[in-house]
Amino acid sequence: MEYRLLIDTSDAKGLVYEISKVLYEHNLNIENNAEFVDKEEDKFFMRTVVSGDVNKEKLLEDIKTILPKDAQVKLNSVAKKDIVILATKESHCIGDILIKHHSGELNANIKAVIANRDTLKDLVQKFDIPFVFVDSDNITREEHEKKMIEAIGQFDFELIVLAKYMRILTENFVQTFSNEILNIHHSFLPAFIGANPYKQAHQRGVKIIGATAHYVTNDLDEGPIIAQDITRVDHTFSWQNMRDAGRNVEKVVLSNALNLLLKDKVFIYKNKTVIL
Amino acid sequence: MEYRLLIDTSDAKGLVYEISKVLYEHNLNIENNAEFVDKEEDKFFMRTVVSGDVNKEKLLEDIKTILPKDAQVKLNSVAKKDIVILATKESHCIGDILIKHHSGELNANIKAVIANRDTLKDLVQKFDIPFVFVDSDNITREEHEKKMIEAIGQFDFELIVLAKYMRILTENFVQTFSNEILNIHHSFLPAFIGANPYKQAHQRGVKIIGATAHYVTNDLDEGPIIAQDITRVDHTFSWQNMRDAGRNVEKVVLSNALNLLLKDKVFIYKNKTVIL
Amino acid sequence: MEYRLLIDTSDAKGLVYEISKVLYEHNLNIENNAEFVDKEEDKFFMRTVVSGDVNKEKLLEDIKTILPKDAQVKLNSVAKKDIVILATKESHCIGDILIKHHSGELNANIKAVIANRDTLKDLVQKFDIPFVFVDSDNITREEHEKKMIEAIGQFDFELIVLAKYMRILTENFVQTFSNEILNIHHSFLPAFIGANPYKQAHQRGVKIIGATAHYVTNDLDEGPIIAQDITRVDHTFSWQNMRDAGRNVEKVVLSNALNLLLKDKVFIYKNKTVIL
Amino acid sequence: MEYRLLIDTSDAKGLVYEISKVLYEHNLNIENNAEFVDKEEDKFFMRTVVSGDVNKEKLLEDIKTILPKDAQVKLNSVAKKDIVILATKESHCIGDILIKHHSGELNANIKAVIANRDTLKDLVQKFDIPFVFVDSDNITREEHEKKMIEAIGQFDFELIVLAKYMRILTENFVQTFSNEILNIHHSFLPAFIGANPYKQAHQRGVKIIGATAHYVTNDLDEGPIIAQDITRVDHTFSWQNMRDAGRNVEKVVLSNALNLLLKDKVFIYKNKTVIL
Repeated sequence: MEYRLLIDTSDAKGLVYEISKVLYEHNLNIENNAEFVDKEEDKFFMRTVVSGDVNKEKLLEDIKTILPKDAQVKLNSVAKKDIVILATKESHCIGDILIKHHSGELNANIKAVIANRDTLKDLVQKFDIPFVFVDSDNITREEHEKKMIEAIGQFDFELIVLAKYMRILTENFVQTFSNEILNIHHSFLPAFIGANPYKQAHQRGVKIIGATAHYVTNDLDEGPIIAQDITRVDHTFSWQNMRDAGRNVEKVVLSNALNLLLKDKVFIYKNKTVIL
Repeated sequence: MEYRLLIDTSDAKGLVYEISKVLYEHNLNIENNAEFVDKEEDKFFMRTVVSGDVNKEKLLEDIKTILPKDAQVKLNSVAKKDIVILATKESHCIGDILIKHHSGELNANIKAVIANRDTLKDLVQKFDIPFVFVDSDNITREEHEKKMIEAIGQFDFELIVLAKYMRILTENFVQTFSNEILNIHHSFLPAFIGANPYKQAHQRGVKIIGATAHYVTNDLDEGPIIAQDITRVDHTFSWQNMRDAGRNVEKVVLSNALNLLLKDKVFIYKNKTVIL
Repeated sequence: MEYRLLIDTSDAKGLVYEISKVLYEHNLNIENNAEFVDKEEDKFFMRTVVSGDVNKEKLLEDIKTILPKDAQVKLNSVAKKDIVILATKESHCIGDILIKHHSGELNANIKAVIANRDTLKDLVQKFDIPFVFVDSDNITREEHEKKMIEAIGQFDFELIVLAKYMRILTENFVQTFSNEILNIHHSFLPAFIGANPYKQAHQRGVKIIGATAHYVTNDLDEGPIIAQDITRVDHTFSWQNMRDAGRNVEKVVLSNALNLLLKDKVFIYKNKTVIL
Repeated sequence: MEYRLLIDTSDAKGLVYEISKVLYEHNLNIENNAEFVDKEEDKFFMRTVVSGDVNKEKLLEDIKTILPKDAQVKLNSVAKKDIVILATKESHCIGDILIKHHSGELNANIKAVIANRDTLKDLVQKFDIPFVFVDSDNITREEHEKKMIEAIGQFDFELIVLAKYMRILTENFVQTFSNEILNIHHSFLPAFIGANPYKQAHQRGVKIIGATAHYVTNDLDEGPIIAQDITRVDHTFSWQNMRDAGRNVEKVVLSNALNLLLKDKVFIYKNKTVIL
């Protein structure tokens, strides 16, 4: 069996030695190992893929014993993660995920797609994925979010993916789910925060547009950035042309970020990410 | 009504003047205009989107009158084009096209998907697109291609799209269809022509991989290039990792090239393309 | 002789016809032609390289006659332009320009480098270019700018290039010179406006950094964007690493933008650029 | 004092543990650490920056003791490396290096520039770097190479940088210098091996061109690739335009690769590079 050992701790002398010693004494093979030390901030991150006869509890205990007290340690299996997807009406990001899921290329189980429009119902149901429609029309933001939280709460999952869910999330929402929330923003953050970034980009006359996948935190569009990519535009692009070109970037960036999360490669730290 | 006037001719003095004069006398508006003159090769290309009360036959006649004798002139409507897609078993390119088709973002009607494996049958049929399975097992290449030509021949279409159709096409096939054939090759051509370019790229130790959309001609992987893009890799990538990363590039490059063809933006010339 | 005819006007029916007719009647060859029509804003831009026996005054007169009254028309020779460069102490941008100038690859004459530090004096003088040091220490911003304006005023030139001139320009400065002013900003605008964008980028944890060449207007970092490019960074980059990586981008973006200006390819319009 | 410990060995269980134990027992701090294990090929690479009171000989001995017999171990200081640059007549790559050297941004001492044309003499001597002209006119390739080897042999250095040295190197040359030889090739290898890659690229009609920095081995343009980058071109580019655009890519790629070598970040393995 393979496991991913994930360590996030303050730095200390001899950490690599101490950790590798425990793994050695547990008679485990290191399939893959990556560390990052931020000397300035005195932080240490490590992601190690181990194989062999893993005694999970004993290993975690032994690792924690030799680490600083503030250390966060996880030992994750390499199994597929359960995810819930939130969407509105655009199909490019969710479609990309559905196609990968259908072909077995996605290392996740999609438990449900929950949307505030019913536009995507037909598409999602083609793939035999539960589609939950939580209409956002004619109700307050608070009422809608309450219903969303109820709808999401029906499912067991490790990760929420916002695949172009075009609603602002409240602090309450973000704090309700201790799980990670992944969002795709349709600009090269921190440029063009907020509504309609392609219109903003068109008006500003930029020569490159982009997309940003980030963790959702209380501050809109301000969470830790996981992945970004760009594409070139010029004066012949209307804002709709920019949007169309940007969609190809959005879906690839979201897909890449999702893969990183599914492989436990992302550590959060000071509103930034360390990717090992 | 809008039309696209497409001119491919040897160069001559006053061409822009003569052509724009005809359009002016036909009382047409120029919505968009682009020319390219290759002085060295004495060639002139022009793509003009005109609107107004277009008398197609008279306009073509008047345009041809003022052009050199070798001129090729087309006057295309801006309507959706009919296409037939050939595939094998990978779903990323065809999936991307199906999602765009379903959401109305593709300026084409998909008449059929024809494949030499039945892997994609379930996916294609979800979208109510005819799927034709022409098994390539246990028959000769010639027999299989004959059956493919028959299968394709049942449909009316303007363009064949090879969305990861993993079979070599014979000269006979290419010449049977006077229509354009668009292919996506999974390398940055002319690097890694032929089979399994990701394995070749891995073995060569490149730091960037790519994909190339090109017209199919008699020479394998040697046709006029329409679009290319790349993504970065490093020593941690197995060839399978390269393939997975490359798929995102392949589908975007194919999608971009297809869009260019659907908008009549591509002229072929000396085994190269001029894109207006 | 070759000339560049540059037209910036409100749109009108038959403009291409009327303009090409004048060129035809003047018996000129069109070496290269590009137009852009913004239908929404009713604007027309055209850059035409003509060769032949050009009667400058008559041609300009005839062209203006057939254009809308608001039209701006220029007929520029293809000769080298005279430029003045402003700098502070970083050598990557100015060094790149000096090397290109020395090898004859730059289509410009450098009349002088004027700097508020003397750091670059040795480098600039190696290339026999006048170096003017206008010390910014111990004087007010206004006093320094006054001296800069005097120093710049000694030279005849068409274009001011800010090659990492790390001073904020006042409205007065910008309005003193009717010439164009080109700046390189060390971020992917509009992200990280203002001071020390690499520190800002590091703190925000972006995965891509960039540089932006733009015209200088009264609003700092808000002028029309001419060229942008990017490079990838990750969590291992300190802000100094980002700065070092960014410098390669800065110098290439500045060089590309400068080339566009020297070829008269850039039109300004609504705080954006049209590049033909 | 900081040192870089560089290990290239066949893989074995417990290597990280054993190595980090030695470092721990030597009471050294790990400033930075990166490993790569190729499970398929049973190979292990490690680059560790250590600080503290380093006993070089004892440390090397202790490390070698615990490693497999085929292990190659180096303990390099972080001091500047001495380099010799070979060039012909283009100034963009050598100019870029000279500017960085002059500003102190290059972590190397340039011992000499040796060229088979005298075109660059003036430029190089501006920077007080020895310029050796070994004329390649009117003598055989063998005679010229013999003279080059003599000229190079006068200097002590760790690395030869071919900054657009446009001569084919013989096996004899490559084997004469046990030092590493870094070359910049003006194409996206393995596309366009050999002479005049920009003309080849223009003729093939590619939409992207690139440059490749690689180690020189006996096989021309076939050595391990260190860095690559690209830029976009289109049908309006003559081959000279491609060359001019490509030069910006060449100099940045060479500069990046040179930095990697100067930081001891590159391991060679099966004609590929591992970059830690």
